[in-house]
Amino acid sequence: MQDQNQQAYDRGTSIFSPDGRLYQVEYAREAIKRGTASVGVRTADGVVLAADRQVRSPLVEEGSIEKLHRVDDHIAVASAGHVADARQLVDFAREQAQVNKLRYDEPIGVESLAKEVTDYIQRYTQSGGVRPFGVALAIGGVDPDGTPKLFETDPSGTPYEWKATAIGGNREALQSFLEGEYRAEMDLDSGISLALETIAQGDEEVDPEAAEVTVIDTETHRVRSLDPEEIASHLDELETGGDGDE
Amino acid sequence: MQDQNQQAYDRGTSIFSPDGRLYQVEYAREAIKRGTASVGVRTADGVVLAADRQVRSPLVEEGSIEKLHRVDDHIAVASAGHVADARQLVDFAREQAQVNKLRYDEPIGVESLAKEVTDYIQRYTQSGGVRPFGVALAIGGVDPDGTPKLFETDPSGTPYEWKATAIGGNREALQSFLEGEYRAEMDLDSGISLALETIAQGDEEVDPEAAEVTVIDTETHRVRSLDPEEIASHLDELETGGDGDE
Amino acid sequence: MQDQNQQAYDRGTSIFSPDGRLYQVEYAREAIKRGTASVGVRTADGVVLAADRQVRSPLVEEGSIEKLHRVDDHIAVASAGHVADARQLVDFAREQAQVNKLRYDEPIGVESLAKEVTDYIQRYTQSGGVRPFGVALAIGGVDPDGTPKLFETDPSGTPYEWKATAIGGNREALQSFLEGEYRAEMDLDSGISLALETIAQGDEEVDPEAAEVTVIDTETHRVRSLDPEEIASHLDELETGGDGDE
Amino acid sequence: MQDQNQQAYDRGTSIFSPDGRLYQVEYAREAIKRGTASVGVRTADGVVLAADRQVRSPLVEEGSIEKLHRVDDHIAVASAGHVADARQLVDFAREQAQVNKLRYDEPIGVESLAKEVTDYIQRYTQSGGVRPFGVALAIGGVDPDGTPKLFETDPSGTPYEWKATAIGGNREALQSFLEGEYRAEMDLDSGISLALETIAQGDEEVDPEAAEVTVIDTETHRVRSLDPEEIASHLDELETGGDGDE
Amino acid sequence: MQDQNQQAYDRGTSIFSPDGRLYQVEYAREAIKRGTASVGVRTADGVVLAADRQVRSPLVEEGSIEKLHRVDDHIAVASAGHVADARQLVDFAREQAQVNKLRYDEPIGVESLAKEVTDYIQRYTQSGGVRPFGVALAIGGVDPDGTPKLFETDPSGTPYEWKATAIGGNREALQSFLEGEYRAEMDLDSGISLALETIAQGDEEVDPEAAEVTVIDTETHRVRSLDPEEIASHLDELETGGDGDE
Amino acid sequence: MQDQNQQAYDRGTSIFSPDGRLYQVEYAREAIKRGTASVGVRTADGVVLAADRQVRSPLVEEGSIEKLHRVDDHIAVASAGHVADARQLVDFAREQAQVNKLRYDEPIGVESLAKEVTDYIQRYTQSGGVRPFGVALAIGGVDPDGTPKLFETDPSGTPYEWKATAIGGNREALQSFLEGEYRAEMDLDSGISLALETIAQGDEEVDPEAAEVTVIDTETHRVRSLDPEEIASHLDELETGGDGDE
Amino acid sequence: MQDQNQQAYDRGTSIFSPDGRLYQVEYAREAIKRGTASVGVRTADGVVLAADRQVRSPLVEEGSIEKLHRVDDHIAVASAGHVADARQLVDFAREQAQVNKLRYDEPIGVESLAKEVTDYIQRYTQSGGVRPFGVALAIGGVDPDGTPKLFETDPSGTPYEWKATAIGGNREALQSFLEGEYRAEMDLDSGISLALETIAQGDEEVDPEAAEVTVIDTETHRVRSLDPEEIASHLDELETGGDGDE
Repeated sequence: MQDQNQQAYDRGTSIFSPDGRLYQVEYAREAIKRGTASVGVRTADGVVLAADRQVRSPLVEEGSIEKLHRVDDHIAVASAGHVADARQLVDFAREQAQVNKLRYDEPIGVESLAKEVTDYIQRYTQSGGVRPFGVALAIGGVDPDGTPKLFETDPSGTPYEWKATAIGGNREALQSFLEGEYRAEMDLDSGISLALETIAQGDEEVDPEAAEVTVIDTETHRVRSLDPEEIASHLDELETGGDGDE
Repeated sequence: MQDQNQQAYDRGTSIFSPDGRLYQVEYAREAIKRGTASVGVRTADGVVLAADRQVRSPLVEEGSIEKLHRVDDHIAVASAGHVADARQLVDFAREQAQVNKLRYDEPIGVESLAKEVTDYIQRYTQSGGVRPFGVALAIGGVDPDGTPKLFETDPSGTPYEWKATAIGGNREALQSFLEGEYRAEMDLDSGISLALETIAQGDEEVDPEAAEVTVIDTETHRVRSLDPEEIASHLDELETGGDGDE
Repeated sequence: MQDQNQQAYDRGTSIFSPDGRLYQVEYAREAIKRGTASVGVRTADGVVLAADRQVRSPLVEEGSIEKLHRVDDHIAVASAGHVADARQLVDFAREQAQVNKLRYDEPIGVESLAKEVTDYIQRYTQSGGVRPFGVALAIGGVDPDGTPKLFETDPSGTPYEWKATAIGGNREALQSFLEGEYRAEMDLDSGISLALETIAQGDEEVDPEAAEVTVIDTETHRVRSLDPEEIASHLDELETGGDGDE
Repeated sequence: MQDQNQQAYDRGTSIFSPDGRLYQVEYAREAIKRGTASVGVRTADGVVLAADRQVRSPLVEEGSIEKLHRVDDHIAVASAGHVADARQLVDFAREQAQVNKLRYDEPIGVESLAKEVTDYIQRYTQSGGVRPFGVALAIGGVDPDGTPKLFETDPSGTPYEWKATAIGGNREALQSFLEGEYRAEMDLDSGISLALETIAQGDEEVDPEAAEVTVIDTETHRVRSLDPEEIASHLDELETGGDGDE
Repeated sequence: MQDQNQQAYDRGTSIFSPDGRLYQVEYAREAIKRGTASVGVRTADGVVLAADRQVRSPLVEEGSIEKLHRVDDHIAVASAGHVADARQLVDFAREQAQVNKLRYDEPIGVESLAKEVTDYIQRYTQSGGVRPFGVALAIGGVDPDGTPKLFETDPSGTPYEWKATAIGGNREALQSFLEGEYRAEMDLDSGISLALETIAQGDEEVDPEAAEVTVIDTETHRVRSLDPEEIASHLDELETGGDGDE
Repeated sequence: MQDQNQQAYDRGTSIFSPDGRLYQVEYAREAIKRGTASVGVRTADGVVLAADRQVRSPLVEEGSIEKLHRVDDHIAVASAGHVADARQLVDFAREQAQVNKLRYDEPIGVESLAKEVTDYIQRYTQSGGVRPFGVALAIGGVDPDGTPKLFETDPSGTPYEWKATAIGGNREALQSFLEGEYRAEMDLDSGISLALETIAQGDEEVDPEAAEVTVIDTETHRVRSLDPEEIASHLDELETGGDGDE
Repeated sequence: MQDQNQQAYDRGTSIFSPDGRLYQVEYAREAIKRGTASVGVRTADGVVLAADRQVRSPLVEEGSIEKLHRVDDHIAVASAGHVADARQLVDFAREQAQVNKLRYDEPIGVESLAKEVTDYIQRYTQSGGVRPFGVALAIGGVDPDGTPKLFETDPSGTPYEWKATAIGGNREALQSFLEGEYRAEMDLDSGISLALETIAQGDEEVDPEAAEVTVIDTETHRVRSLDPEEIASHLDELETGGDGDE
């Protein structure tokens, strides 16, 4: 239970507590933990983003529970946390990608995009009258020079680069699962399996219809969403212990 | 009963509570529960929106209790919650539809419109000095390519796509009724009956004069309001168990 | 007596209480109850607005206690509540009527005007730094196509269409009197008598000098104020039970 | 003594209390009661404004204690309450009179001016960050068509038209004295005597040097200030019971 | 000692207390009482402003303790209270004088200037986010038509015209001394003596080096500062009872 | 220890306390006392500014602890208090000096500059949302006409002119030392010695490397910083009692 | 533990406490202590910046934990504290460097840049509605004239010049280690060793992969990052006591 002193500092959106913390940013991180997890895995020949759509009703159109978003031809984003906030950041990212293409006549780099987004997020932590974004993003893509990249943003506006990461609820457990299973030499296919396996750690049985997987490979530089059959085949493989190709 | 800690966070319109919640958005959801329910049903050949005008006095002109609103030729909206807030969003939606037509010379897609509206709603949850919109919308329509679509917006600014949904008071009960009765292969006519039957769950006897039904079919792509006779005939059918055509 | 929890929510002009209420809007409704009542009656051949000027001193020039206001040739407004707020809304309504005439070269419809006014009112319920309007309006008029119309606005910014309504102090009693006495087939003359009779419910004896009556008939489409003699003759008729023509 | 609940509502300049009151406006009325009274009397052939300058020191230049202000050739104003606030409203009124003259090439009507002023006052009761004007004005003048008019403004921004009125401290007593003595058929001269007699009700002996009287007659349409001799002669008349010409 | 209720009202810079007072304005008056006094005396042939520079250290350059300020050729100002605030008002007054000269090609009248300054002061009492000016000014000068004038401004923004006045600490005592000694027919020389004698009431022995005297005479219309010798000669005269020329 | 009443007034940056004080300005003065002292001495042939750099670590580059700042060729500034605030004021002063040179084609006067700076400081004491500057400046220079001048600014925005002054920590003691030792007829050399001796009052042994001395002499009108050897020679002189030339 | 009085002052971002402190600035310093340390060492032939990337997971891409940033060809920055805030200041510094190059056609001086950055930081300590930057920077570079320079910025906006410094967690201990080991005559190579040795004080064993070292030498005027092999070789040298060349 929090005490009186803490309360004094967590109400103002942009002030430090006596021990140098920004409570609103920390509470925004709690908002992220309330969402379902998304996973990003970087492999030698591409990046995988995966998410489990926690569908609340059979009447909800599954495709509308957006967790993975295409930002540009070569970059996609997985989100965890406050859905409406995620949409704002995705829109911002899309604009930045367009602006970059118009200005420099070439696709934006994944790191450049991640930094534009985190600078934007940071501004919501330093001014009064607004709250931080209650969302984390995993930004994956292939740079114009063919390098696969995976970044994460948090509510403070700090960019982190990862080989593989999980955002959202149950993050610590999924992260440590990834640490045990990740191999630097993995190919994209193994990456997909690992991503789905990680998702499955937090959810007894992953439904191919409910799972979302998006890949950006180093050959085509194109964002591609897997269809339920592809996902199902990967899930089958997992069950039959078919992770021998990693 | 709420405790002191909660109070500290729910007054500011745009700050997170220590557990990552936005109380003002949650309270706006309570405002929606205070309204009467509206129902949306998507069928193979069109979308149905239905509402029960809770008329408080025989002197009120029933037609003026607006729950269903035409947004464009091919899109309509059902609202639940704060009526005056609903009107603002409907006006915003109409403007967006007009702007789209002028800019691209074609009707706006239902999903595009739903997302414009939810982006607008989200902005009222992140800045200080304003409150969230106390209203939910069911946005139904037929896309230029002939696909029927049904979306819902909530006070957080999240868009959901549904096969069928209920918004407003008594939502949980109506939603689960819909889950039991909805069939994907329903035609528009059965959809109207289901919508009215759902409305009737929360209201012992639906008065044809008080009920409102609007349909957008995939053939004409036109919003059409049913007249009381049509509604009455559907209601009669329900009473006589005439739901054999589903 | 209100408790501590309520207090926390009713101070901010634009925040929801935990049960989804906007207390400032509800308190503005209390301001309306503190005023004297105004009545509107729609008949087949026109609309009647009536009010009782509660004159506080024989030295006050009765004509200056404005409760009925001409908005355009064909639309008038009755107000109840905070007089200075009413004047702002009447000025806004007049401007909208003028703008419509200039833009479309035809008189504004009564419903259009009512909605412009309620949209304006709504904005004062969603932004910080302002309070809602403490006034209700009954907007009566004849549409360009000759249809008589009667609308009401409240502090939330919701428009209602009525056959007959009372706003201001004692509203519930007057409303239920109207419900008992109103006949759809009434002519304008009977409408005037009903309006005065309703006013008289809240005031033992209506003084023809103090009463105000304005009519807009479907023939001339013109706002016309009755002079004290006309009012007196209607009042006499009431006393002698002369309501046989309804 | 006020209780805790009241306090909660009277601090914000523009919010309603649970019973629909605007406390800041009511407190501004208290500021008016703290001033000395001014009186306005409308007669058949002109309007009289009178005030008693409560001079605090023999060294104060009496002419500088402004209670009566010329607004235009044909309109003057008496004020009661916060002197500096009164000056702002008088300046505003003068500007409006000039603007009217430039725009329409004719003098502004007394009622038009009163309403411009009250609209301006109202804005200071609905927005945050400002306080209401702590002043009442009696606006007297002769309309272009020769009609004498007398209006009063209060801190809520409501205009009232009067035959005769008193504003400021001791208002109730002076008002009821006026009610007893006022005659509709009074001529301007009798009006001056009545105004001075009313002022004298709140002040044992009115000093001709300290009293201020301004008249606007229907013949010249000109604001004219009486000199001390004229005032003294009226005061003498009062003492010798010379009110026979009323 | 102040009680809880008072506290509630004196924190907001621009709200009324339940008894109609503006506490911030009253507290600003307290700031003035904390300063040393300045005196203004109007005589038939000019105006005298005098002040005693309360020098805190022998190292302070006396000339830099500004209490008297030249505003234009023919107008000077004495201040009491918050020195930095006084400087803002003096700068504002100088600008107004320049603007007037440019616009109308003639020197600004003393009363006009006083009113420009008080209007400016009033604005700091009605808007939120600023505090009132903690300073009083005595504005003395000779009008273009040769009339000597003396005005005073206070933190509420009210202008007063005086024959002679004292502002700042000990005001009541000095004011009543002035009331006893002032003669309307005084010449400028006697005015200087009276001003210095008044200053001396609050300070056992006035040091000619520390005293400041500025005069504006009706012949030259020019602001002139007396040098220490002139001041000393007047002070000597006072000691030897040389006030026979009054 | 402060009591509850005081607290109520010292939080708002721009409101008066009931006794007419501005607590934020007074607290800013406390910030100045927390800094080390600077000294200014005006002599017949120039102005001396001196300061002791309280170096906290042998690794700090002494030259970077700025206490003396060149503002223009002929004006320098010594600061005490909040270093970052001092830099803002010094930058402002430099701009003003440049602007003056461009506008009038001659160097700015020392008093003019001091007043520009204090006007700027005052604005930070009257508006909400900002805090006062937590710094005092001693502004020394030689006017275009060859007069040496020394001014001081405080957080209220009041300019004082001094023959010699100390600002910052231990001010009272240093000031009274200066009062005892200062001679009006001192030459620049003696001024330097006095300044260093005063500094030494608050610091057992002044280190020539740590001391800073800047002079502006009436011959060259140029700001010149003494090198450690010059300072050391003055310090030696002091120790051997070599203050015979004063 | 803090007491009630302190709390009253540390919530507003820009107000002084009664003892003249700015608590928000002090709390921002606490945020810096929560970060890992960075070290700067100035040698005769260049400046060294070093940092230890505290990698939290083997999956984090080490290169993405930015602690050292290139600002221009000849200037780099080490940061400690809030990472997202650091990025804002680095971006600001880069812009200033570019602007300087465009405006004056030459590289910006290290001190000029440090002061631009600290002026920017200061503005976030004086205005309401924003919080201070929770970050310290060590700015190192070589001036156009070949002089190596090392500056530090803190959250108050004060620039300090250092021979060698440590910022971030454990600062006091690292600073005093530096004080003992630093030699003015060190060459760049010894500087690198000292920087790494200092880092190692706070971290038992520095991992060459995790350590970051950037140098700017006086010959090339170019920022150069050491690769892990170079770092490893320096670390080996340290272990084998190879600090004989200092």
